[in-house]
Amino acid sequence: MEALDYHAEERRKAEFAVQEMKIVWAGSRQAYEMSDRVARLVASDPVFRKDNRTRLSRKELFTDTLKKVAHAWKRIIELRLSEEEGTKLMDFMDQPSFADLQWGMFIPAIKGNGTEEQKAKWLPMAYKVQILGCYAQTELGHGSNVRGLETTATFDPQTDEFVLHSPTLTSSKWWPGGMGKVSTHAVVYARLITDGQDHGVHGFIVQLRSLDDHSPLPGITAGDIGMKFGSGAYNSMDNGVMRFDHVRIPRDQMLMGISQVTREGKYVQSDVPRQLMYGPMVFVRRKIVADASTALSRAVCIATRYSAVRRQFGSQNGGPETQVIDYKTQQSRLFPLLASAYAFRFVGQWLMWLYTDVMQRLQANDFSTLPEVHACTAGLKSITTSATADGIEECRKLCGGHGYLSSSGLPELFAVYVPACTYEGDNVVMLLQVGRFLMKTVSQLGSGKMPVGTIAYMGRAEHLLQCRCEVERAEDWLKPHVILEAFEARAARMAVACAKNMNKFPKQEDGFAEVSADLTEAAVAHCQLIVVSKFIEKLQQDIPGKGVKRQLEILCNVYALSLMHKHIGDFVATGCISPEQGALANEQLRLLYSQVRPNAIALVDAFNHTDHYLGSILGRYDGNVYPKLYEEAWKDPLNETVVPDGFHEYIQPILKQNIRLARL
Amino acid sequence: MEALDYHAEERRKAEFAVQEMKIVWAGSRQAYEMSDRVARLVASDPVFRKDNRTRLSRKELFTDTLKKVAHAWKRIIELRLSEEEGTKLMDFMDQPSFADLQWGMFIPAIKGNGTEEQKAKWLPMAYKVQILGCYAQTELGHGSNVRGLETTATFDPQTDEFVLHSPTLTSSKWWPGGMGKVSTHAVVYARLITDGQDHGVHGFIVQLRSLDDHSPLPGITAGDIGMKFGSGAYNSMDNGVMRFDHVRIPRDQMLMGISQVTREGKYVQSDVPRQLMYGPMVFVRRKIVADASTALSRAVCIATRYSAVRRQFGSQNGGPETQVIDYKTQQSRLFPLLASAYAFRFVGQWLMWLYTDVMQRLQANDFSTLPEVHACTAGLKSITTSATADGIEECRKLCGGHGYLSSSGLPELFAVYVPACTYEGDNVVMLLQVGRFLMKTVSQLGSGKMPVGTIAYMGRAEHLLQCRCEVERAEDWLKPHVILEAFEARAARMAVACAKNMNKFPKQEDGFAEVSADLTEAAVAHCQLIVVSKFIEKLQQDIPGKGVKRQLEILCNVYALSLMHKHIGDFVATGCISPEQGALANEQLRLLYSQVRPNAIALVDAFNHTDHYLGSILGRYDGNVYPKLYEEAWKDPLNETVVPDGFHEYIQPILKQNIRLARL
Repeated sequence: MEALDYHAEERRKAEFAVQEMKIVWAGSRQAYEMSDRVARLVASDPVFRKDNRTRLSRKELFTDTLKKVAHAWKRIIELRLSEEEGTKLMDFMDQPSFADLQWGMFIPAIKGNGTEEQKAKWLPMAYKVQILGCYAQTELGHGSNVRGLETTATFDPQTDEFVLHSPTLTSSKWWPGGMGKVSTHAVVYARLITDGQDHGVHGFIVQLRSLDDHSPLPGITAGDIGMKFGSGAYNSMDNGVMRFDHVRIPRDQMLMGISQVTREGKYVQSDVPRQLMYGPMVFVRRKIVADASTALSRAVCIATRYSAVRRQFGSQNGGPETQVIDYKTQQSRLFPLLASAYAFRFVGQWLMWLYTDVMQRLQANDFSTLPEVHACTAGLKSITTSATADGIEECRKLCGGHGYLSSSGLPELFAVYVPACTYEGDNVVMLLQVGRFLMKTVSQLGSGKMPVGTIAYMGRAEHLLQCRCEVERAEDWLKPHVILEAFEARAARMAVACAKNMNKFPKQEDGFAEVSADLTEAAVAHCQLIVVSKFIEKLQQDIPGKGVKRQLEILCNVYALSLMHKHIGDFVATGCISPEQGALANEQLRLLYSQVRPNAIALVDAFNHTDHYLGSILGRYDGNVYPKLYEEAWKDPLNETVVPDGFHEYIQPILKQNIRLARL
Repeated sequence: MEALDYHAEERRKAEFAVQEMKIVWAGSRQAYEMSDRVARLVASDPVFRKDNRTRLSRKELFTDTLKKVAHAWKRIIELRLSEEEGTKLMDFMDQPSFADLQWGMFIPAIKGNGTEEQKAKWLPMAYKVQILGCYAQTELGHGSNVRGLETTATFDPQTDEFVLHSPTLTSSKWWPGGMGKVSTHAVVYARLITDGQDHGVHGFIVQLRSLDDHSPLPGITAGDIGMKFGSGAYNSMDNGVMRFDHVRIPRDQMLMGISQVTREGKYVQSDVPRQLMYGPMVFVRRKIVADASTALSRAVCIATRYSAVRRQFGSQNGGPETQVIDYKTQQSRLFPLLASAYAFRFVGQWLMWLYTDVMQRLQANDFSTLPEVHACTAGLKSITTSATADGIEECRKLCGGHGYLSSSGLPELFAVYVPACTYEGDNVVMLLQVGRFLMKTVSQLGSGKMPVGTIAYMGRAEHLLQCRCEVERAEDWLKPHVILEAFEARAARMAVACAKNMNKFPKQEDGFAEVSADLTEAAVAHCQLIVVSKFIEKLQQDIPGKGVKRQLEILCNVYALSLMHKHIGDFVATGCISPEQGALANEQLRLLYSQVRPNAIALVDAFNHTDHYLGSILGRYDGNVYPKLYEEAWKDPLNETVVPDGFHEYIQPILKQNIRLARL
């Protein structure tokens, strides 16, 4: 790449074919080439520059976002990019915007819940960007619990219209991206009321703003909800607040794909099975897991490269200090995150398969796997996003003081990522859903009903509840079946223990509430098992490229054994492994770290992130960190003047006078 | 307080005298009254307003900071505030600034390392604010390892001056607060060179800027290092970059309290024992621990109050939903943090005693306790700041989506707090120092040398390595001596296990490096024991006020048992407790949570934070959250115009034309 390369030596150390690993990471050669081409396209376009982002005021940042989106669309057309390429281009633009909602929520909502006529009418307008749509569900007082929404849509038979209204302050729509300043339309979720009867929450297509002057339509109050975490980050998004004062829309703007309201105001449930709505849900969660691996890979790439540049202590007689990446304390925090990025990548690729499988079953009206799929995707969403959010912050700390600078890229990466722990299902709520599923599965053991898919191991509960781990020497922990059984036993025993505690309570709901904290831990154990097992399955495939498979085997073991070390209490307390076996696992882990060390830089190079996308001076491909940090500093607005504004007015007079301030 | 109080019912539930608890929290009635008076003073002064802070540009924020500092000094003089009151006022101003360095670092450095003449000359100017000083130690390429600093101070016998110089780019001073734009002077740390010989790093008083026009003096290049984590937060501080090009200062500006350079250029070590420098270090770390309890208490106060306002799910036939604070999953994350805030408070109060004790010993040339004091303060700095940083982010997540809004106060609190994990000793480096001390202590067992102070329990290692926990029923876990022995046994066994593993290696340093990750865990176990034991000691005092002591006993048990649950692997794997006893601890913990629940709001009221200081709509004393969130939203700059800047230029044209963008 660049002529100058401080990492050249590190790259020479690599024991595997980086190019082949890039393809494994991308999923296929074709996917790699497309992604690589689009990434460079974005990186080389000055309009997509983002290194100045944290220095922009809210208004400047927002205008910059409008400009970038318009430019992105322009390029997509000029270059005749495919749908897939276009999506990639927006991803690499790396700036949250109203546009994400058009394709991520508005269009899918109409596709999923609209009638054929509705799709025919609205989708073309959306695709042609004659309208801009958002997804207006959450309210000021209502988040996770959709059933609690207060906004009403009352049918008026006189005029054949629905009247949308915000009856309370807490019913104000709150958070929807794009709604604050940009969207012209929205799918609004509101309680459907016909003839005084409440039929629960349904979706309605509502025009929000004039297509001529963009002012909100009569009865609609709209605005942005204000600054959010970080500078830059999600402040490029106009998350909105909106109130409806008896806003009327024609009846045919209720999304009637699943249930309808007739001209007479009769509410009709369609015979379309509700389960069909699981399809899009699985798709969205697959995307979230894939995004988690990408976000974590960016942080790990920055921390790994800078850990090879940065030196601290250990200088022998005036020689250079030790690279911090050589410290075991650094390795034991960094390498498990590196392994997690790969682990999440592969479970994300597997979820793509799961999605196609589910869609086929749905078409065949086979709903048998849905509960398992629902629990599995909810759980994976939860543990991958939580681990990624924590992992990004850990990577920031691993960069020492400089990780605190915006120019490290890590503060903004953290601030822009953490919402993933909350949106599309709060991570704790998700784990509780997994917990319910686990309790149901346990209660059905022996009923002859065999658990399927990712919970199939529960079918061997009897064995898993009493099996003994066979590990005698540290290297025994390198055997996949040994690791797998330990994780299966842990998950099974924790679930059964929760079920026992629950049953101590006369009322099941009370029991569930009481042990819910433990249930979330059992859910985590179940989901970590899924990730470990999918990593192991991946390694059973034939993976070309010199040393590539070997590296992945090492990372798979690092992932599993570092999880075991972190949750050693689960494994030992449930008797899945002995304390001695735990110590052997830890010993093996240390050996694995030394095997990762020489390949660390190449393993993060395999993510193929451009310097533009990384947006980090510490993570620069060429490792030329300090001169660039120095250069960047001078760009701060405070450096525009020698004497800062306000100094002469406020501070100078104090320096001049002679009053003792005591020792403050 | 306010007439309207949505928390009135919660406050009625309290089973203890809140007013008395406020005094316990503050440390004394006098401390409480002073703090309360100053807090209200700041809260009622419009100049100290900070609710608009995250909306300011970097320059606006910086000018706002200069203005606030000048105003604070003005008020301190007008009101004839004592030194202690003045410090409090700056604390409640709650905005990092150059002024923190004047009293926190510049003056102490001169006091600690200057000669009497130097103190007589420089301290009055600093106290009178005729000069503004900072502390210039860290460099672009050098942080934790002070010995690695590159800046040189070469003595020139011809002119009787030192020549300060930055020989490399990485030797540029980097990070010092106040140095970027404001400080007129600095204590600069540089390698002392006399007659070609390097005598290591020493401190020098250097004038940086003209006292007339504030421009940097010849040979000095200075600037701000740029944006940092968050909006607001530490961006009010001018962390600086500085290079010296052969800058000359008179010989008497080397801080010569400990060693001197004579007129002839001879380097003389004074007979002042170096250990005296431990005093200030203990003082600084005591402050950091106290600040941790304060920062955590703010986050916990916000999350607890909002958890009582916020309702989700569990609505019975259309009734109100359940307060989220009633969910065990919420309690199991929130209440341990509430308990931690109190635990850190009391260990901080104990450190105040330790400081006086150390100072007395130093005066008596008794250095016997220093190694233990050093390890203890380093470790407590590390675990309290790490737990607080993680705890603030956990509290943010506990507030759901709204915690992501700047108006929740939590994003800025996190961003402004996290540096504490890095400055004054990186937390991992600190733990390794504790680890070394533990290994030394273990190696001396049986040598007759009895461990003292917080490590005294190691004297009973023989017993602790084989003792069995006596717990048979959940309530046995309420006995302080049972908890204490379990924590002592865990710490002792982990330390001894590390020592064994270390000794497997022929060279001790290799062993230390290899097991360093485990050593940090042993260090954490040791430090958590200190916090638990100091909390228990506190409860042995007589604590007045109805129900106050009872509440603290509950919190002490919550703190200890939640730590035990989190680190259950340590306790079970080392055989300190059995898995069954661990399960009983967890069962007891659930019971304790239900006892905390009715007192939760009152327990955070006891922190006595003003709404101004909390700076959070979610944490408002009166619980009037939703109307105020709604009001606040409209203040965002984006809401100044109906149509956002750039919309007509960039987006409108796209809406008007008719081109299909494919499905992006």
